[in-house]
Amino acid sequence: MIGVGVVGYGYWGPNLVRNLADIVDARLVSVCDLMTERLAPVKARYPTVDITSDFDEMLHDPRIDAIAIATPVSTHFRLAMMALMAGKHVFVEKPMAATTEEARRMVEEAARRGLVLAVDHTFVHTGAVRKMREIAERDLGEIYYYDSVRVNLGLFQHDVSVVWDLAVHDLSIMDYVLDEKPVAVSATGMSHVPGEPENIAYLTLFYESKLIAHVHVNWLAPVKVRRTLIGGSNKMIVYDDLEPSEKVKVYDKGITLNGNPQKNGEKVYQMLVGYRTGDMHAPQLDISEALGRELREFLHCVETGAQPTADGNAGLRVVRILEAATQSLAQRGRVIELEKARLIA
Amino acid sequence: MIGVGVVGYGYWGPNLVRNLADIVDARLVSVCDLMTERLAPVKARYPTVDITSDFDEMLHDPRIDAIAIATPVSTHFRLAMMALMAGKHVFVEKPMAATTEEARRMVEEAARRGLVLAVDHTFVHTGAVRKMREIAERDLGEIYYYDSVRVNLGLFQHDVSVVWDLAVHDLSIMDYVLDEKPVAVSATGMSHVPGEPENIAYLTLFYESKLIAHVHVNWLAPVKVRRTLIGGSNKMIVYDDLEPSEKVKVYDKGITLNGNPQKNGEKVYQMLVGYRTGDMHAPQLDISEALGRELREFLHCVETGAQPTADGNAGLRVVRILEAATQSLAQRGRVIELEKARLIA
Amino acid sequence: MIGVGVVGYGYWGPNLVRNLADIVDARLVSVCDLMTERLAPVKARYPTVDITSDFDEMLHDPRIDAIAIATPVSTHFRLAMMALMAGKHVFVEKPMAATTEEARRMVEEAARRGLVLAVDHTFVHTGAVRKMREIAERDLGEIYYYDSVRVNLGLFQHDVSVVWDLAVHDLSIMDYVLDEKPVAVSATGMSHVPGEPENIAYLTLFYESKLIAHVHVNWLAPVKVRRTLIGGSNKMIVYDDLEPSEKVKVYDKGITLNGNPQKNGEKVYQMLVGYRTGDMHAPQLDISEALGRELREFLHCVETGAQPTADGNAGLRVVRILEAATQSLAQRGRVIELEKARLIA
Amino acid sequence: MIGVGVVGYGYWGPNLVRNLADIVDARLVSVCDLMTERLAPVKARYPTVDITSDFDEMLHDPRIDAIAIATPVSTHFRLAMMALMAGKHVFVEKPMAATTEEARRMVEEAARRGLVLAVDHTFVHTGAVRKMREIAERDLGEIYYYDSVRVNLGLFQHDVSVVWDLAVHDLSIMDYVLDEKPVAVSATGMSHVPGEPENIAYLTLFYESKLIAHVHVNWLAPVKVRRTLIGGSNKMIVYDDLEPSEKVKVYDKGITLNGNPQKNGEKVYQMLVGYRTGDMHAPQLDISEALGRELREFLHCVETGAQPTADGNAGLRVVRILEAATQSLAQRGRVIELEKARLIA
Repeated sequence: MIGVGVVGYGYWGPNLVRNLADIVDARLVSVCDLMTERLAPVKARYPTVDITSDFDEMLHDPRIDAIAIATPVSTHFRLAMMALMAGKHVFVEKPMAATTEEARRMVEEAARRGLVLAVDHTFVHTGAVRKMREIAERDLGEIYYYDSVRVNLGLFQHDVSVVWDLAVHDLSIMDYVLDEKPVAVSATGMSHVPGEPENIAYLTLFYESKLIAHVHVNWLAPVKVRRTLIGGSNKMIVYDDLEPSEKVKVYDKGITLNGNPQKNGEKVYQMLVGYRTGDMHAPQLDISEALGRELREFLHCVETGAQPTADGNAGLRVVRILEAATQSLAQRGRVIELEKARLIA
Repeated sequence: MIGVGVVGYGYWGPNLVRNLADIVDARLVSVCDLMTERLAPVKARYPTVDITSDFDEMLHDPRIDAIAIATPVSTHFRLAMMALMAGKHVFVEKPMAATTEEARRMVEEAARRGLVLAVDHTFVHTGAVRKMREIAERDLGEIYYYDSVRVNLGLFQHDVSVVWDLAVHDLSIMDYVLDEKPVAVSATGMSHVPGEPENIAYLTLFYESKLIAHVHVNWLAPVKVRRTLIGGSNKMIVYDDLEPSEKVKVYDKGITLNGNPQKNGEKVYQMLVGYRTGDMHAPQLDISEALGRELREFLHCVETGAQPTADGNAGLRVVRILEAATQSLAQRGRVIELEKARLIA
Repeated sequence: MIGVGVVGYGYWGPNLVRNLADIVDARLVSVCDLMTERLAPVKARYPTVDITSDFDEMLHDPRIDAIAIATPVSTHFRLAMMALMAGKHVFVEKPMAATTEEARRMVEEAARRGLVLAVDHTFVHTGAVRKMREIAERDLGEIYYYDSVRVNLGLFQHDVSVVWDLAVHDLSIMDYVLDEKPVAVSATGMSHVPGEPENIAYLTLFYESKLIAHVHVNWLAPVKVRRTLIGGSNKMIVYDDLEPSEKVKVYDKGITLNGNPQKNGEKVYQMLVGYRTGDMHAPQLDISEALGRELREFLHCVETGAQPTADGNAGLRVVRILEAATQSLAQRGRVIELEKARLIA
Repeated sequence: MIGVGVVGYGYWGPNLVRNLADIVDARLVSVCDLMTERLAPVKARYPTVDITSDFDEMLHDPRIDAIAIATPVSTHFRLAMMALMAGKHVFVEKPMAATTEEARRMVEEAARRGLVLAVDHTFVHTGAVRKMREIAERDLGEIYYYDSVRVNLGLFQHDVSVVWDLAVHDLSIMDYVLDEKPVAVSATGMSHVPGEPENIAYLTLFYESKLIAHVHVNWLAPVKVRRTLIGGSNKMIVYDDLEPSEKVKVYDKGITLNGNPQKNGEKVYQMLVGYRTGDMHAPQLDISEALGRELREFLHCVETGAQPTADGNAGLRVVRILEAATQSLAQRGRVIELEKARLIA
């Protein structure tokens, strides 16, 4: 039975603890937080779980095989490296680290030690996103675009921009659903509060193919929107995460291209673009809690050495884009090549 | 009574003719189209209206005081200049011209001759957009952002990109609703049909203030969306043009900023950002046909010498942005200063 | 080529005329209305069509084979009988007549003379309703209920209640989609304007099987709703006529009944009711204008002697329910057996 | 400090316990359930709370001033009477009792002993329903109709029909929002599972005025709907409980009646019915948990002797309608006078 410790009991930590406590094959050994007053309810609710404000204790606890990190982003690198160096497997919140360089060192450390490093890209474990990947591979044909809107009147963060807070979700979903990885990013945005990071941002991702991706994130919207459009040559998807059911709708719609544009003059070619509309289909989705399945997968990987769906490299790819987007934002949309970003990092 | 001729009886021309025929103070004298087979239904339906395929006839017709131009964009400049030189007032479809340079020359020609030059920015005559301007001026406070999505599975154009076809609407609305004019534009997009212009595009507009505007246009979307969010320091607007009623919703929501960020350290300041939510209000809108009101305004300007709401300068400002966006699109979002665009043009 | 005359050029007549003028195999001979000022636009738009205010002229016109009646309900019987007696085929607006007795005599007269009598149940010719019938027959299994809401802020009628004005649509759709015919009706409702008929009403229809149908109609609702739910043992339908596309959604949902309720005690049986949820599917629908297809079918029937989809008997069945519902309304929902209604009539 | 015991820890009991544990002015003394395995989590989560399977213990516990009953409906009467006879104040789930007679005896017993008897009509404590009452009193004018749809694919109950399970919510809301009380009810419905109570039902409520109310409840619907329309002479309300925000929308719409219908002939009167449309307004709502506020009100009443918003008489009025509706259901909508129902009971 794998022993697990959780560090960080703020916003997300309680969800990790609740799910880990429900997994019969794992043992939730202890929960750590610097703010000891946060730990009282842990003890009340899970009397058999130890609580501590000393992370070192956790590192030296032989009952603990793996550590889940749910602390602020700026601390991920330090805590994860300490855990890995102490021989613990690591499950870390997204974004995985504050810089590409940090993320790369975490990946390398885990690889060197043969430890599992999983990143909590929760969305890739939802029924909706898993179904979209299946449809993307099987039904969409060539993928033309991926467009996501994720806006609401939300909690302003002070240490990171809306890109690190919200776009990270979309980037992790794209990393999972789309086969291709972006080669460049252009980002624009604005901060409306003096001294604070951007609260509205627009990212365009470029790929080697004709695929284009775009993400709109905004902390200052009057309504909540969570909507993604994916356009393919055969079918198209609308994914609305706020729909109580039918979150994923697949449209048998598109354009038809007949004839040979190289051979034909413009006039002729114009007559050969047609439209196609057909049925719409909303597949049934697995509605079990994504985080529970994700943690079970992590524990399974610890046990068997398998790779988690969202491994350190997935986390690294996402952080690299966040970093490049932040550079682009500062230059009103100047395109940042992701390979260049790699070299810089 | 003002005499009017209409040139171009394709997609939009019939709407001009229908509305002009209904205005009792004007006389629809003749309709011109190069494709004579298009003109038969005009004669059948409006027996007193002349039809012709010779634009020169219209230019020399002393009964005609003003000419409405509803031909392809590439012909606007030539036809409008001929009309102005013949002493006719001009009402021209949007976009007003194919280049900034053309648009400028049209404005100058009209000014020199003291003729009215109106651009058919139809949306600025709708009840919804007029109400939004009223609210923007009175209720929104400082305007933070303007975000519009205008996508559908639409008719691919072959001569112009989706920016000239769809974003032109948003740019004309912004020109009317927002006090401030943009200083730079960054645009990204993609063509998915070989040899054709971009069918998906994203425009970011920068302003001297902290206002940021963004437009997403797409001819290849599985669903139709026409939704604009406008965020202000006091209130926010959601404008959904597909709603049968309640197209404009005003939200009494936002953030509250207390304290003096310059004087306080980061920790302190963080506690001073608050959220505010209140009632939502959907004002009743004038639902009479915008085009009818717009044409009556044009005729009134012809009569009195007043300036139309969307005059040649408004048309010019919109074309200038379209041109700059097209330059930016070709360079994956490189920011184009609108003053530079002016010099180039 | 079949010659057609249209009597009544008020609200619906123009639609009949427009569609008939578009059918190349038919000849629209003349249009009749008592209010001659209504006929001027007919002449202007369709110069080859005769206009008259004398219905007798139409009856004696040898060029006319069939007459379409679009006058107030109270006149349907008299005009249709005159037409039939003059040997003309008849296409009559819904509701077909003001009483069951009238409707029956119309059916008998048409049958006796071997003339086609079609009732304009337009909805049964829409792509949505035709698809629903197909699904009802093939996929729904045993049909449990049919529930429709048809409300809006609408034109109050003065001669008939909201039941005759709006519920007639639902009754005609049910008559077409459902195999079974109702045996009794209970209706409740209210008039809120002194001296006027009911502006809100609720109809329940009972069947020999366990099918139950219900219609809610209201002229005084703040929002427009056109939504029908059909529940079957295998699948269920949501039909929303206000959706621009995806009007018909088919849900693979329901309950599962296992075990033998007769043999089991209550406790045991309770454990055997389960729920089933699966995919949702929105079939593509024919979006061509229903009225055009309906009129072509009528003309085809005139030519070949075939029965129209909505023949006189369909019209009669609907009127019989309207009449019984009116009786029930007056008695606060007292159930009216439809066989009794037949005898009374 | 008032001591409270909770009996019944099935579906709703945990919500009572959670809310009571959060109220600092009350002491949650013990929780009782016949199924002892249900009580283990209570002890784990609330270590200071006693657990018992013996209701008598609770009755004799001097620390307990009030008992909250969350057991099946059929047991409400017996448990509540025992509690009242033991001098305990009572907070009982809805519906308050299985028959009007039971409900009346509970009301009388509480009155005789000067004890508080509150019924858990939770909805009347929500921000949405409280706001609707305020609007109904102040803005709607004469209320014309109340129409509610409450359908979903839900848990079939075996002991009570969908009327007792779902319509009870609407009846409790109406009892609170509408000034007038119904005088008669007509109900239709159907059971689609052999041996089980009705799973679909339609209730019409009649009033002395022209107000008419209607409730549609259904356990077998493919989609979840929670929508109420309230029509008044001045304004109208749409209440959609599934909306995340803007649950209550107030429409400034209606008809205008001018002239004197008694004096005018029909023709004249017809011209005097007009339509009025204006703004729509969605007031901000209190979103704190209704049950918490409700329990605090109950405790306040225990302390001060004030009447709770939903007292025993409100519960009795609702049960009386449920009982009459059940009679009507069995007779296909025969109208049941509520006064007669009283006499029978």
